[in-house]
Amino acid sequence: MDADFLEKLKSLEIPTCLRVCCGTDGSVTFLLEIMARKPVTVKTEAQYIVRADREMAALLGVEEGSEVNNRTVRLYAGETVFVHARSLSPLERMPQTMRDQLMRADIPIGRILRSHNLETRRDMGELEILEGEPTFEGIPVLSRSYKIVHNNHVLMWINERFPIDERWKL
Amino acid sequence: MDADFLEKLKSLEIPTCLRVCCGTDGSVTFLLEIMARKPVTVKTEAQYIVRADREMAALLGVEEGSEVNNRTVRLYAGETVFVHARSLSPLERMPQTMRDQLMRADIPIGRILRSHNLETRRDMGELEILEGEPTFEGIPVLSRSYKIVHNNHVLMWINERFPIDERWKL
Repeated sequence: MDADFLEKLKSLEIPTCLRVCCGTDGSVTFLLEIMARKPVTVKTEAQYIVRADREMAALLGVEEGSEVNNRTVRLYAGETVFVHARSLSPLERMPQTMRDQLMRADIPIGRILRSHNLETRRDMGELEILEGEPTFEGIPVLSRSYKIVHNNHVLMWINERFPIDERWKL
Repeated sequence: MDADFLEKLKSLEIPTCLRVCCGTDGSVTFLLEIMARKPVTVKTEAQYIVRADREMAALLGVEEGSEVNNRTVRLYAGETVFVHARSLSPLERMPQTMRDQLMRADIPIGRILRSHNLETRRDMGELEILEGEPTFEGIPVLSRSYKIVHNNHVLMWINERFPIDERWKL
């Protein structure tokens, strides 16, 4: 784990469950489910394929023009939304069955990865607090980005946003 | 994640932080550090090499007689012990630098794996509550076992025991 990421996270005065979800190097879906003790569901806001521009190609380590799945979802535990997540996934790196799951159904990424028994690592990137964002109607959000790496290539880049408020007192 | 493991964990009336630590498919060391906001340290209780008997060989998927590192540690956050962990690691599967770290120093396994940038998955096994065990002077413990899998082989088998009491109200 990146030492800066860890120190930054430890310094924040936020509910423990929020810090834990934002910090884990495991599945957020799964943590949320055991914290809230309610089934976690995904609602897809947008999902389409784009061609990687220069910046996206650099981020994902693919050729410019490669097909990338762009998915934006909200994660709910019971009736409460806890996470807004955007993922960028190069299609060429994904097994066909995973591609189908990612593109067709409201399945959390943690569950997709798990069902494929993939060996991965998660490389943490940025962690920041954003104020006045529309994501959660102006509630400040904790935003983190990381890469899920498989066979030394980026399988997915993910940005997660967590509203900073009382809903995390679980 | 195994559905039984998840349902069992959700059903337990225990502090949320304990449930989360016992349930994560990521690094426990790291979760503990961000929960407690204190540095996590390891104290090694025992560490020696054994030859795998039939049962251990089956558990780890190695030949009988293979060398296996048997390590028992306690994980502290600040001055408080939170986890008792035993690991069995086949020496033949470990890069030399990892072997050195595991055998010589008080380094948590999560940190050792992280520093080697390994891609892994964690396969959950048993989850049970044990009463009257000496591990934490008779305090009931939540015990779980899992395998860390790398290149489709068991890199480590781990049993973690968590005392069930108020120390988890973090």
